[in-house]
Amino acid sequence: GFRFAAAASGMRFTGRDDLALIVADRPAAWAGVFTTSSAAGAPVLLARRRLARRKPVRAVLVNAGIANAGTGKKGLRDAANAAKLAAKALRVKQHEVLGASTGWIGERLQLGPIRKALPDLVAGLSPEGHRRVARAMMTSDRVPKHAVGRCTVDGREVTLLGIAKGSGMVAPRMATMLAFLVTDAAVKQRWLQRALSEVADTTFNALTIDGDTSTSDMVLLLASGVAGNRPLARRHREAAEFRAALHELALDLTRQLARDGEGATRLLAITVEGARTREEARTAARALASSLLLRTAVAGASPAWGRVVSAIGASGAHIVAEKLGVLVNGVELVRKGRHRGRKAEAAVREALQDEEVHLVARLGLGKGNSTFYTCDLTPAYCEENLHPSLPEPR
Amino acid sequence: GFRFAAAASGMRFTGRDDLALIVADRPAAWAGVFTTSSAAGAPVLLARRRLARRKPVRAVLVNAGIANAGTGKKGLRDAANAAKLAAKALRVKQHEVLGASTGWIGERLQLGPIRKALPDLVAGLSPEGHRRVARAMMTSDRVPKHAVGRCTVDGREVTLLGIAKGSGMVAPRMATMLAFLVTDAAVKQRWLQRALSEVADTTFNALTIDGDTSTSDMVLLLASGVAGNRPLARRHREAAEFRAALHELALDLTRQLARDGEGATRLLAITVEGARTREEARTAARALASSLLLRTAVAGASPAWGRVVSAIGASGAHIVAEKLGVLVNGVELVRKGRHRGRKAEAAVREALQDEEVHLVARLGLGKGNSTFYTCDLTPAYCEENLHPSLPEPR
Repeated sequence: GFRFAAAASGMRFTGRDDLALIVADRPAAWAGVFTTSSAAGAPVLLARRRLARRKPVRAVLVNAGIANAGTGKKGLRDAANAAKLAAKALRVKQHEVLGASTGWIGERLQLGPIRKALPDLVAGLSPEGHRRVARAMMTSDRVPKHAVGRCTVDGREVTLLGIAKGSGMVAPRMATMLAFLVTDAAVKQRWLQRALSEVADTTFNALTIDGDTSTSDMVLLLASGVAGNRPLARRHREAAEFRAALHELALDLTRQLARDGEGATRLLAITVEGARTREEARTAARALASSLLLRTAVAGASPAWGRVVSAIGASGAHIVAEKLGVLVNGVELVRKGRHRGRKAEAAVREALQDEEVHLVARLGLGKGNSTFYTCDLTPAYCEENLHPSLPEPR
Repeated sequence: GFRFAAAASGMRFTGRDDLALIVADRPAAWAGVFTTSSAAGAPVLLARRRLARRKPVRAVLVNAGIANAGTGKKGLRDAANAAKLAAKALRVKQHEVLGASTGWIGERLQLGPIRKALPDLVAGLSPEGHRRVARAMMTSDRVPKHAVGRCTVDGREVTLLGIAKGSGMVAPRMATMLAFLVTDAAVKQRWLQRALSEVADTTFNALTIDGDTSTSDMVLLLASGVAGNRPLARRHREAAEFRAALHELALDLTRQLARDGEGATRLLAITVEGARTREEARTAARALASSLLLRTAVAGASPAWGRVVSAIGASGAHIVAEKLGVLVNGVELVRKGRHRGRKAEAAVREALQDEEVHLVARLGLGKGNSTFYTCDLTPAYCEENLHPSLPEPR
């Protein structure tokens, strides 16, 4: 139920795609989650307003290179005008086109290159274009990220497709995580939003590369309904199945984002188990995933469990030294506050060489569990960020 | 009114001082501020309890190499026993000796080496020993940090002396910022605590190297009273003067700590002006000082003001794009949301080469101001932290 296209507008990059369209064959129910930044970019502010009206949409216009954030009222006007241009080219209404931008903060969107590229974009729309779109919206990303999910609703096979970009939750060089999820399932808008918000909580919102939240983060989920099922809603008997497929899709993209964190050599998943409450588990897991010292230790394959104690303690989550357990990829490093010795340590050093590291901190105080996703922190992260790599504003 | 000594106990390092004593000639009024970590180390927990009783103290025993944090009840017992040993050697009461530890988290304090080193320590006490103490408590620090201040109270010259260690607010390798301030002024305990808490708010608590809060942070202020002035308290007519001298001393040490941040090449002071409230200014200044992207840009002398917008926005502090101003060492980069052009940018690149960088973000929304201190973030920070550098636990 969706077609995709990408093109090179020349707005900020030369010789590469930087503009993309996602078009729904029918008016699509949609849901979104956005950055909580008080400096949210113009496309985020516009999309939030649209979402409040709960009307179906037909297309998303995405550009990479200029974030259209920190641009004030002029930025809002530019975003609206870009949507207008796309709407005209697609022969749909302006309010049926959403925009998303990633790139340089504080610079204005250029409408000329968009106007010029639109005919080619529209002509190039194809159901197989999503990989090219995933590539067109990359900034400091090393690899494009996409995933596919399937489930059955009302006896019909339903497909979910997602693409994402971002090499940091914030501003890995130029600020943005974007993800676009589409499905041919028919879904009622209210439940679609609820499902996306819940799923984002344990996937995209459980990701941190460098601890900053971007001005432009945006996850959109569009449902075209061409699968022909009875519209999914809370009481639909297969709602849970669809939600699980959506969760799996989002988690897949989240892990791809973490693994492609700037300078990263490995994915780091961190689970806190047995906190007094789920909220404390989440606070502690976020703190561990944000700890520069833990992340550098993982980069160096060093089993520095003191850094686990320090990061949990600093987060304010309750911790009792005598109860702490620490496991790395299933190998126990600490049990009930006691180091398990030389042999365990050697095994953990070995485990830390894996491409995926799963660190579990057991607090032994209650039933609160939470998992966060990040990557190791290497000198390459700093090197990449010494000098912003986009061409300077003209 | 104070004497100092340091010695090599061999507890965790070989061939260097790692144990120190600070002794007051008379029972000294004292005040303290401590880490807010829920995994606070044993010496912090003990000192907090003592402070609640408001009784004068005679000595502080400091060790580097083992933090005695994450050690539970055994750690508390070890800390109490270390104080007992020192009290015996000094012929004072156990509750008159405070302890402070920095180093490896999760490892137990060793009492044998302390017992063995104490006679030498006591014999070596001297009023000029503070530089050696500043050096003995270093862990990943590259330079010892000390400062002296003076003011006049009741016609008598009063001296303040401070020493500090820490190459990160948390766990630069092994977790700890410690600072010990002493004065010969006579000061009432309640006011001493209030003055220290207020001063710490804009100095030590306005410092961040890597965003983590250590298990062992502790700032102690001891006042021996040998200057013979009327005890300082809120209504003393020279209270403000003493407070100003204390603030200057603490700020001096804070700046020394920031400049010695792991891998740092320059001090970065960040002031947020014109926030809606002081609290929002502080939130924004802390966020800027914690932004990996801003700190790497400073390391690369890149005037990436988009990262300023992003970090303030992510902090939740209110920001209006059209009102933002950004200055670097007095050079205006952005005024009312507009970039000041190529020439200003070149001047800012030049200013970013200085050893001290003062970035001012003007929000233009109110009267809230706040300053934070940090350092630039370089690949060397990551390299230093890949492998903890203390010898492994035995």
